[in-house]
Amino acid sequence: MKHTISALVANRSGVLAEMAEEFKSRGLNIRSISSGETENPKVSRMVICFDGPEPEADAACECAPEPTLPPDGIIATVARMDFVIQVDDLSRREFVDRELVLMKVRRENESLSQLMQILEVFRAGVVGLGEKSITVELSGDSERVEGLIRMLSPFGILSMARTGKIALKRGDE
Amino acid sequence: MKHTISALVANRSGVLAEMAEEFKSRGLNIRSISSGETENPKVSRMVICFDGPEPEADAACECAPEPTLPPDGIIATVARMDFVIQVDDLSRREFVDRELVLMKVRRENESLSQLMQILEVFRAGVVGLGEKSITVELSGDSERVEGLIRMLSPFGILSMARTGKIALKRGDE
Repeated sequence: MKHTISALVANRSGVLAEMAEEFKSRGLNIRSISSGETENPKVSRMVICFDGPEPEADAACECAPEPTLPPDGIIATVARMDFVIQVDDLSRREFVDRELVLMKVRRENESLSQLMQILEVFRAGVVGLGEKSITVELSGDSERVEGLIRMLSPFGILSMARTGKIALKRGDE
Repeated sequence: MKHTISALVANRSGVLAEMAEEFKSRGLNIRSISSGETENPKVSRMVICFDGPEPEADAACECAPEPTLPPDGIIATVARMDFVIQVDDLSRREFVDRELVLMKVRRENESLSQLMQILEVFRAGVVGLGEKSITVELSGDSERVEGLIRMLSPFGILSMARTGKIALKRGDE
């Protein structure tokens, strides 16, 4: 079970260590994290994507209420940490989310036009072209990013860097 | 002094906590971090942007060798951690770096065309339009992202989420 939460935290030394330790002590594996400054330099926004516990056999039966919701325990614990200003469960609310990927893909002369067609379909950008490789960037929701990775894999992905998700609430709120 | 390092790490529980603890114990403040999967699901790439110690008065004099380099101590320590596969100092090598920002900006009817012109110049995308706000995304190097933030600030930035940097080596290497 994958879960994603977004937390506004005070921008001071050590908050990342405390947050990571909290997840570790609960046996929750952080799959990706993205933390950067917000419009207020004293505040950072962390978006954490983690593997939650699988629903127990009992809880997974049809009668169980909302077995796919993230474990409330970790949300409540995070909300209580002294440096946390606000925490949102991105699985529950209406958010627009985006992530960014950079990929260096093997290219041969005969495969370049095919590669360019794929990049055009995904509206991905070219940030570098070498004799044997092309470096591309794409921002989009996870589905789009996964889609491009799947399409480029057959060419040979030489290296890849991927940010975690970031997200904002939809609408005027 | 801002420094940025990129580390390939084993994708297992607890590595983020150990890494963050190492920085904390050295009094280094992590300004942004971005950690996600690579082309190999067993490996994650962390890009960490941190405040290093200011060069000392002596070291800052003209005769000092390379006073602006990141503290080698932390690079060497990170390289020795048992889950670290490779670490690069992004200040030293030729890297292409990118980051992603989402911003919700206040809009009034009369300011919309002006906003759209700015977004076009920066080739930023619109991901949402409300009655009182517009939500935009931009990926680019830090300078471009900072530039857009500066241009949109006068309109009123209602909320903002920003990934840390990610980076790949330039060229075919």
